[in-house]
Amino acid sequence: MNNPKVVILGAGYGGIMTTVNLQKSLGVNDANITLVNKNDYHYQTTWLHETAAGTIHHDQTRIPIKDVVNSKVNFVQDSVVEIKPDENKVVLENGELSYDILVVGLGFESATFGIPGLEENAFMISNINSARLIREHLEHNFALYHNEEEKNPARLNIVVGGGGFTGIEFVGELANRIPELCEEYDIDKSLVRIINVEGSPTVLPGFDPALVEYAMNSLESRGVEFITGAMLKECKPESIVYEKDGKQVEVPTKTTVWAAGVKANSIVEQSGFQTNRGKVEVKSDMRAPDYDNVFVVGDCALIMNPENERPYPPTAQIAIQQASTVAHNIKAMIQGQELESFEFISQGTLASLGHNDAVGVVFNKYKLFGWKATFMKKMSDNRYLLKLGGLGLMFKKGKFNFFY
Amino acid sequence: MNNPKVVILGAGYGGIMTTVNLQKSLGVNDANITLVNKNDYHYQTTWLHETAAGTIHHDQTRIPIKDVVNSKVNFVQDSVVEIKPDENKVVLENGELSYDILVVGLGFESATFGIPGLEENAFMISNINSARLIREHLEHNFALYHNEEEKNPARLNIVVGGGGFTGIEFVGELANRIPELCEEYDIDKSLVRIINVEGSPTVLPGFDPALVEYAMNSLESRGVEFITGAMLKECKPESIVYEKDGKQVEVPTKTTVWAAGVKANSIVEQSGFQTNRGKVEVKSDMRAPDYDNVFVVGDCALIMNPENERPYPPTAQIAIQQASTVAHNIKAMIQGQELESFEFISQGTLASLGHNDAVGVVFNKYKLFGWKATFMKKMSDNRYLLKLGGLGLMFKKGKFNFFY
Repeated sequence: MNNPKVVILGAGYGGIMTTVNLQKSLGVNDANITLVNKNDYHYQTTWLHETAAGTIHHDQTRIPIKDVVNSKVNFVQDSVVEIKPDENKVVLENGELSYDILVVGLGFESATFGIPGLEENAFMISNINSARLIREHLEHNFALYHNEEEKNPARLNIVVGGGGFTGIEFVGELANRIPELCEEYDIDKSLVRIINVEGSPTVLPGFDPALVEYAMNSLESRGVEFITGAMLKECKPESIVYEKDGKQVEVPTKTTVWAAGVKANSIVEQSGFQTNRGKVEVKSDMRAPDYDNVFVVGDCALIMNPENERPYPPTAQIAIQQASTVAHNIKAMIQGQELESFEFISQGTLASLGHNDAVGVVFNKYKLFGWKATFMKKMSDNRYLLKLGGLGLMFKKGKFNFFY
Repeated sequence: MNNPKVVILGAGYGGIMTTVNLQKSLGVNDANITLVNKNDYHYQTTWLHETAAGTIHHDQTRIPIKDVVNSKVNFVQDSVVEIKPDENKVVLENGELSYDILVVGLGFESATFGIPGLEENAFMISNINSARLIREHLEHNFALYHNEEEKNPARLNIVVGGGGFTGIEFVGELANRIPELCEEYDIDKSLVRIINVEGSPTVLPGFDPALVEYAMNSLESRGVEFITGAMLKECKPESIVYEKDGKQVEVPTKTTVWAAGVKANSIVEQSGFQTNRGKVEVKSDMRAPDYDNVFVVGDCALIMNPENERPYPPTAQIAIQQASTVAHNIKAMIQGQELESFEFISQGTLASLGHNDAVGVVFNKYKLFGWKATFMKKMSDNRYLLKLGGLGLMFKKGKFNFFY
């Protein structure tokens, strides 16, 4: 292929790493690379729970795209409206792009499974601005509570729907943050409730039971309440209703954070790709089964784990690994060489429980908790930054507060 | 080759990593591996300056051999007396071993260049016990000074000969440790002198000038005196004599630490190997030029840097990289495959200036100083432990005090 147009949609983990890998491996005359993203920054989705709780500033969570892509890459700040794979075109809000090779990395959106009121009344941890909104909303409510004559206890009840990864990491941050807010606004800490509602019999389903127990103990000792085996029924402006053991319970709250469901960006399905659960079940070389010049990466791609015949969960780790394969295969296509197959190599899973505690498994054999897990988690965050933008970026945006 | 006897002499960086690599890559029936070392532990030569200053406990610096080698490896605790390469034999103090393949990793010994009195009166940072002796000697002298009626100022003058890597890292640790000792023994800090004597016009010769300046400023601000362009002339029991600008100066001291010269273990030369500056100039596959079944690794091996036609300095980094090639080539020899050539890939050089400051260059482009350099230095120490003995060893013996 002679100087093909490569268009990458989305600057999440999959999209930005594909771009950075390509700008390293391709020369200026090998391809014309264009990255499209609605913001002029990449952000760390896996850090949003910290931004939302207010334990890190949102500027640490986001990285200007110009800091990591160089002049080999054209950057278009725009939103994708539709992909027309039969015409090799992408419709943007403010224009249209044609491509020879396309990479779809459009990420996720929240899924509310039709639970009444969630869409309107719950907060979501989906992007920098929705996370900032949670932070501001919490502070605002604590400020109002402090000042109002007739205290509204709904301001101090924080309900988090979902005890998966995001939900647990978020309540962990809240457990660190709430005591600070209470001190700031002179509020008795014991009046605040952090309530985690999870449908399964346990939080962090799929995790090692000993680590789940450690996580729950750590969080409960810092004031988190768990309500497991409970389904959210309705989210109202001033309360939430859940059902447990056949009984419905209503908790007054002005803050419900929904962290229990994501789905692939619906543009993918709307653009006519063949999908499975809203995602493109990619071939082993990461291409869409029906279009040989379209790669799909990250949360929009579905890959089956051959060990248990279930899809790999959508994580930053798998997106970053996929980006290597996608970049490699784009280069191979351009040079007329053979494409390689993607193979996921799990480096482990670590869930933070606030800034000074965590649990997880690394290298497929070491169970970790406490400071060792926190250390490995922060080091893995730093390693990503090193990969993305070198030592300079790592020291600028990394996490070095290992033990405070 | 059918189940050959592989004997590795020395459990320094080169020897222990060769052993660990071999036990990973070879099966029990591929070879009979024997490691010989005079102690039942491996120690981190690059941490000895900390052990000597007393800023870390010697047990953090050493690692029991049984913690990192498994039952595939026979361990013999003994001292090597002589190698008989023509007979494929090694003479030990308490026995004799025959081998099919030999790895010589016998490390360094101090070189005093015939300076009178050094051998008898100076301390050396060569192994765990010589480092512990310095620590004890320092404490003993501070204790005596505190208690003696007629104060002997020679007890409070510490002279370090050599402003290379070891000398600078050692005075950096002293600059941290001395104030603690002064407080402990109720001694006025301003009475203590830490004097670094270096023959070259500058310390850390070969380092980037801006980083050298940073290092000297950092150390001087913490009380270190530098006397550069000065040659040690004599080391007496209660003083040291140096010559600078044609004038001789005598400094009363009970503590001279010689950190200016190392040479390869003299057993190598005495055993009849063809040597260059006391080392074996190995072939590109790390074998001795005159014996096809003898590999030499670490400080006993000499390899020319093709860029400047000078030998690579003997460092832990190069020894660890050589160990990969040696282990690979031993396996290749056993399986009748082709041997690979060693190629040194510099990951950078970092010199610590005490536990909370450092200078250096990493990835061949980033100049670092201050906390970033300290962080990278400690992470590189941790990475070695991870390589040597896994996550368990890293967390047990690693350095995690990044910022205090």
